[in-house]
Amino acid sequence: MWTYETTVNWSEGKKGETGSEGKPGIGISTPPEFGGPQGFWTPEDLLTSSVASCVLTSTLFFAEKGGIGLRSYKSKSTGTMEKTPAGLAITGVKIEVSIELEDAGQEAEIRKAVERAEKTCPISNSLKCPVEVALSVS
Amino acid sequence: MWTYETTVNWSEGKKGETGSEGKPGIGISTPPEFGGPQGFWTPEDLLTSSVASCVLTSTLFFAEKGGIGLRSYKSKSTGTMEKTPAGLAITGVKIEVSIELEDAGQEAEIRKAVERAEKTCPISNSLKCPVEVALSVS
Repeated sequence: MWTYETTVNWSEGKKGETGSEGKPGIGISTPPEFGGPQGFWTPEDLLTSSVASCVLTSTLFFAEKGGIGLRSYKSKSTGTMEKTPAGLAITGVKIEVSIELEDAGQEAEIRKAVERAEKTCPISNSLKCPVEVALSVS
Repeated sequence: MWTYETTVNWSEGKKGETGSEGKPGIGISTPPEFGGPQGFWTPEDLLTSSVASCVLTSTLFFAEKGGIGLRSYKSKSTGTMEKTPAGLAITGVKIEVSIELEDAGQEAEIRKAVERAEKTCPISNSLKCPVEVALSVS
């Protein structure tokens, strides 16, 4: 069992800060479309990044295990929130991953590694909604 | 329908950065217990903060609606990850919220507001695991 401890403190208006020991604080707010200010991380942004960073760290794990060298890994992620019968909820997260390989001959291996990352990422495993990963390799 | 777009890019080793347009970037990494460095936000931290910041923003919404003035709002949150039959997953998030009221006579009202926040928070609604909120009011 592993535990992750963070703090969330209100500052003023619809703003606050989240912290975790030994790490830089992150300014947070209600999303602008619900009356919050611009320029702050929202709960929905953090969830989207949580899933996408889990896909990265899981991919790095399987790439290392499989001896696959990466030149770069970039991703764009979109979390969708909708009204559902149970209230507002995140209904899907899509992640477009672009990977450049050191050895282009390892495309099949990296595709398998990302597929395994997608299936075993602990954050995806914790969500009710689907997480889709689209991968481009060069 | 609302969408939340973020990026996650690998830098080196088990580290990277997550971004969202117009907001400061956040350094991320694999958790130290899985071979990552110290001092970076992990996917599990981000998920924990996502839930806890959602409880804050939802509480602020219901407090404003109910005309409840807050002097302060602080919270500590713990996300727990465990091995499950479906693989590693977040199995619970506990949030201890401490609120100081402008008018101590509104304790019943703020308790109701936090209860509604807990029930309607879109992030909690999106998780398979339970989210528990313990509230102390002064």
